[in-house]
Amino acid sequence: MKSFLTLKSMDEVLCLLNRFPRLPGKLVPLDDAAGRYLLHDLTAPEDLPGFDRSTVDGYAVRARDVFGAQEGSPALLECTGDCPMGRTPEFRLQEGQTARILTGGMLPDGADSVVMVEYSRPVSDTLVELIRTQAPGDHVLMHNEDAAAGATVLTAGCRLRPQEIGLLAALGIEQVEVARKPLVAIISTGDEVVPFSSSPAKGQVRDVNSHSLGALCRLAGARVRFEGIVRDDIRLLEESVRNALCKADIILVSGGSSAGMRDHTVDIFTSMPDSELLVHGAAISPGKPFILASSDTKCLMGLPGHVTSALVCARAFLLPLLLRLQGGSEKAVPGVPAILSRAVASAQGRRDYIRVRLERKDSGWLAHPVSAPSGLICGLVAADALVVCPENSEGLYAGETVYAELLQ
Amino acid sequence: MKSFLTLKSMDEVLCLLNRFPRLPGKLVPLDDAAGRYLLHDLTAPEDLPGFDRSTVDGYAVRARDVFGAQEGSPALLECTGDCPMGRTPEFRLQEGQTARILTGGMLPDGADSVVMVEYSRPVSDTLVELIRTQAPGDHVLMHNEDAAAGATVLTAGCRLRPQEIGLLAALGIEQVEVARKPLVAIISTGDEVVPFSSSPAKGQVRDVNSHSLGALCRLAGARVRFEGIVRDDIRLLEESVRNALCKADIILVSGGSSAGMRDHTVDIFTSMPDSELLVHGAAISPGKPFILASSDTKCLMGLPGHVTSALVCARAFLLPLLLRLQGGSEKAVPGVPAILSRAVASAQGRRDYIRVRLERKDSGWLAHPVSAPSGLICGLVAADALVVCPENSEGLYAGETVYAELLQ
Repeated sequence: MKSFLTLKSMDEVLCLLNRFPRLPGKLVPLDDAAGRYLLHDLTAPEDLPGFDRSTVDGYAVRARDVFGAQEGSPALLECTGDCPMGRTPEFRLQEGQTARILTGGMLPDGADSVVMVEYSRPVSDTLVELIRTQAPGDHVLMHNEDAAAGATVLTAGCRLRPQEIGLLAALGIEQVEVARKPLVAIISTGDEVVPFSSSPAKGQVRDVNSHSLGALCRLAGARVRFEGIVRDDIRLLEESVRNALCKADIILVSGGSSAGMRDHTVDIFTSMPDSELLVHGAAISPGKPFILASSDTKCLMGLPGHVTSALVCARAFLLPLLLRLQGGSEKAVPGVPAILSRAVASAQGRRDYIRVRLERKDSGWLAHPVSAPSGLICGLVAADALVVCPENSEGLYAGETVYAELLQ
Repeated sequence: MKSFLTLKSMDEVLCLLNRFPRLPGKLVPLDDAAGRYLLHDLTAPEDLPGFDRSTVDGYAVRARDVFGAQEGSPALLECTGDCPMGRTPEFRLQEGQTARILTGGMLPDGADSVVMVEYSRPVSDTLVELIRTQAPGDHVLMHNEDAAAGATVLTAGCRLRPQEIGLLAALGIEQVEVARKPLVAIISTGDEVVPFSSSPAKGQVRDVNSHSLGALCRLAGARVRFEGIVRDDIRLLEESVRNALCKADIILVSGGSSAGMRDHTVDIFTSMPDSELLVHGAAISPGKPFILASSDTKCLMGLPGHVTSALVCARAFLLPLLLRLQGGSEKAVPGVPAILSRAVASAQGRRDYIRVRLERKDSGWLAHPVSAPSGLICGLVAADALVVCPENSEGLYAGETVYAELLQ
């Protein structure tokens, strides 16, 4: 008897993912942390840059000494010398005095602004005319302008992009705490599936899902264990899942998308220790036969066997889970606005992922829907992006502006 | 004497990058190739899936035997048995015959379509009523529908996303040729700069650029060598550049953004073997003091010392170069459409990169320009995206729809 699914909406499934806890933290060297996620808020241990710095080559001044200075009416100042780079100037500017300074140099005591060298005319070794009026703070980075000691400069969950790595370097932070990488065990099932390194006989196909899902996981920061191919045999599959559960944080079972094996997968997932069946069927297409269960804090996912369905479903649910386990905050899905080149129909109550090929036009991007059965990989290979047709819609019109989520 | 720059436009600089050749190829295992770029067009060595496959659970038929079948007028067929999974059925459908088949199973000779199990009513062990008319090909993946032997299925330069890895696995390709990873040597300069692991005295700052630029390179697929910090001394810098040139494909020198050191950097670059100065100043902001030179096939880049300028400039020019050295094709820059929350001014003839913070609104994204001097890193840390104000514009209006390139 074929079982009927009670489909959960996309949002319901995403909400259920919140029960899986973030993985434990570990310290990694700063230069290895790019692309990972900060686990805790970061407070600046000190002021940055730590001293008042010039942003130009020129003359450090007291703004009131050059007030009103201009081409026809220069301010004549006594030049006391050069501000050294990388050291504290050993003098203090008195009224009517100035000192040469380079970009990045430390302002001497008394100075509050810098006149650019373009607006200076040396008169003698010790006298200089300045022809620009300045306000205090002009061309100066204040000692705590980048960060003030004690202020929160980064928040937990932020992705460590090049600029965050730069800020951490500026603060002298040599190691940073990030979640350890999630370990994903991948099991492919199906009597007709053979390893990709073998030559399939007629009726057999090579294992695609292990490798495409493995690539998706790795690009999302996870480590991968290939657990191999399991025949459509409940006892063998149960043994394989139980075995993988000892090692991995997430167990992915792809295949078994026919009604019979799908039920077996559910039975096996619910036979694991402290297990709970969370989702049996999701209202997305492709990807309807999605299964989600927990075993204690570990996650068991059943993905469709069809290669396109498995990947789209993994993008929808596995990527948010991997982000969560790594302690990352939700982020904008990168994409481009595009004009749909032809209408596509969709079923109401279901979120459809339309594969599109993008074409650059003078006026912007044109999105061409790609038609290919979900059992083929060529449709996803031809696609540059996915367009979501939401639950409350029966389709999208030709000429409609859509948001094309880039398949990177 | 301060030198005046002849600024090159963004497009001119990008065009000059074309002289740097793609790096030599090497074979890597398929599972390590995700995120890299295919070096050569790929021709399918065989048909995929290689045999006619059912996409559903049901009954394999000759379409003409169920022509016109419906609820009130079923077709009565002789069921000859089950199509085995993973093997060639050892029988041929004759007129009036059908066979049970599962999703992914191979169609027997004679069959041209499949009736879903939902439209079947077993009458006896050997007789079944089917109540659905089908056209030939319904619920069948043809033997060469995913790829036809000899057809070009992937083109040189394509990024190996999870679906391309899947296609290569389906074709049994265990190793794939990609360019070796570019090696980038990073030199920071400045008398005031100290290693990030040390405690700067007043007037000193920690080296930020090595680490932020290093992170950018690694996230773009390159390897990085930190060549340390060099004082503002022409002989030391020359030695460091010459030394790095023996090892790396790209030499990045950041700092020396004051006019004097900038000229020194140009002199040093042009003193290298077979060198040519390509760019001395780019019409972008931040990033104007950009320097580009070649030494034989290697690339020498001078980036501004200001941390934000260095990173924006590296995104504009270094990322396209890294893509090129890896043999990748140009790709869409991921971003989101957003409404600008306030006006920003720009100079005509210059491409401005406006840093923006994105805020999600019901109506879409709102882009708030971030104001911070380019010597500070906090402005880029606060930014989610960059908005380009093009060369032919004097600014962007509040309320204008802009394309926000995500800083990922």
